[in-house]
Amino acid sequence: MRAVLVIGIGMGAPDGLTFRAVEALGQADVFFLLDKSEGAGDLVTARQALIARFGKPSHRVVRAPSPKRAPAPLDTARKTYEGAVADWHDARAHLLAGLIATELAEDETGALLVWGDPMLYDSTLRVLERAQGQADFNIEVFPGVTALQMLCAAHAIPLNAIGEEVALTTGRNVAAATPQARAFAVLLDDGSGLAALMARGFDGHIWWGANLGTAGEVLLAGRLGEVGPAIPEARARVKAARGWVMDVWLARVAPGGPG
Amino acid sequence: MRAVLVIGIGMGAPDGLTFRAVEALGQADVFFLLDKSEGAGDLVTARQALIARFGKPSHRVVRAPSPKRAPAPLDTARKTYEGAVADWHDARAHLLAGLIATELAEDETGALLVWGDPMLYDSTLRVLERAQGQADFNIEVFPGVTALQMLCAAHAIPLNAIGEEVALTTGRNVAAATPQARAFAVLLDDGSGLAALMARGFDGHIWWGANLGTAGEVLLAGRLGEVGPAIPEARARVKAARGWVMDVWLARVAPGGPG
Ligand SMILES: C[S@@+](CC[C@H](N)C(=O)[O-])C[C@H]1O[C@@H](n2cnc3c(N)ncnc32)[C@H](O)[C@@H]1O
Ligand SMILES: C[S@@+](CC[C@H](N)C(=O)[O-])C[C@H]1O[C@@H](n2cnc3c(N)ncnc32)[C@H](O)[C@@H]1O
Repeated sequence: MRAVLVIGIGMGAPDGLTFRAVEALGQADVFFLLDKSEGAGDLVTARQALIARFGKPSHRVVRAPSPKRAPAPLDTARKTYEGAVADWHDARAHLLAGLIATELAEDETGALLVWGDPMLYDSTLRVLERAQGQADFNIEVFPGVTALQMLCAAHAIPLNAIGEEVALTTGRNVAAATPQARAFAVLLDDGSGLAALMARGFDGHIWWGANLGTAGEVLLAGRLGEVGPAIPEARARVKAARGWVMDVWLARVAPGGPG
Repeated sequence: MRAVLVIGIGMGAPDGLTFRAVEALGQADVFFLLDKSEGAGDLVTARQALIARFGKPSHRVVRAPSPKRAPAPLDTARKTYEGAVADWHDARAHLLAGLIATELAEDETGALLVWGDPMLYDSTLRVLERAQGQADFNIEVFPGVTALQMLCAAHAIPLNAIGEEVALTTGRNVAAATPQARAFAVLLDDGSGLAALMARGFDGHIWWGANLGTAGEVLLAGRLGEVGPAIPEARARVKAARGWVMDVWLARVAPGGPG
């Protein structure tokens, strides 16, 4: 049976990978590259460097043009944000199933490299599961260090207050409604989640980081009211300097502070 | 300035560590062991094996009896659960500050090994921050793979539904109140969180794992109503077989299912 390895590569630095992930890179006959982040130079370069360094000599790389995500939900058959994403996943699953069937011999092993950890706001496992409907293969997952772990490590902080819940969520969700939790960790924020939080006068601490674990890493931390306004600027500066920016933040009500 | 490295060791298997974590193990002059999990044979053995394997030849190990957590909240000065934990953290911080001051020379590096990742439901960083009030040292954190990542990898599933929030929480919190989110990831559950969820008739899927990444690993998954009742038994069997059990689970409302 064919195997497809889904390998978490953390923030792309070779020494941030686990030994198991490196071993997995060395087992793959074929690396499938069909990432949408093709514009982001640093990220593509990091992947290529990992494959060159840890891939076995005979490995092959199969590059597929990633289907573009529908520009707006209403242009897709399913008329919602989730629907647009699901349509895009279907298209990718179909593409990937075809590649696995044609490029991978029965006893060969394929691999997909995933930024951070495959479990966290990443579509690879969902897409592969759909592809299993059209091609026969097993999936094996190798964890990688997430952006959230990089954030907490860089600030040397715990994610959660003692025994407390943390809402792990997206900028979109934070913008749409106040999270119930007293702490939340936010990925995929274009700035609107943070802006909404400040507009609501959230009284707490924020720890923010951009391009963590890469050459352009920037950190900010402090009370939201004080540090918050500087974040959009810092974000724009990173983007201007590196050509891309990804940021993640953790906000928590001060211990004993208002809920 | 003294440095104290806080090193995430994942589930204790050498090949589950990142290269950076292994490098950090090789930098430490002194390893401080003051973990409360001393009863759990496998966990202690895993730590000792890592130190023996990756520690530099001249390393020293300083073992300190961990202050026992107050048996009940009302026996402590602060009269709540959080208070009891905080008192215990104070006692550990005091102990640790003393050890750092006496056992670590000015230019030496100490290390603490943390199960999984130091950010996630672990007191080490909180305790060290308090200890900084009594001794001078810098803290550096090295991420490790969390139990939650091991769970998702073992089941080959994403943590979150597309774009959705996940409540990262404890069994205690789940037992106390229904989480607002449609998905939650639960650590530190003695069984009461799961029981409360079933009693409330939560209609969704559960992915469960015990002693992940270790010799006794057991997995279960399915609709909560079907799989849930088997979990306490499976948990008891792991405990009987290995002498310890730690389990983690993810529950999610079925896509399109009731909230
Ligand atoms: C599609 S999600 C993928 C997350 C990834 N699977 C992980 O485990 O970190 C992309 C989001 O992750 C966060 N992110 C990824 N890399 C980052 C980095 N180097 N610095 C800061 N945030 C990052 C940002 O919030 C970004 O919007
Ligand atoms: C005090 S918390 C520490 C979590 C750890 N820092 C991490 O990153 O995974 C202990 C809880 O982690 C989870 N856990 C730790 N190791 C585990 C394992 N090998 N298998 C399943 N769950 C585990 C359980 O929920 C346990 O109650």
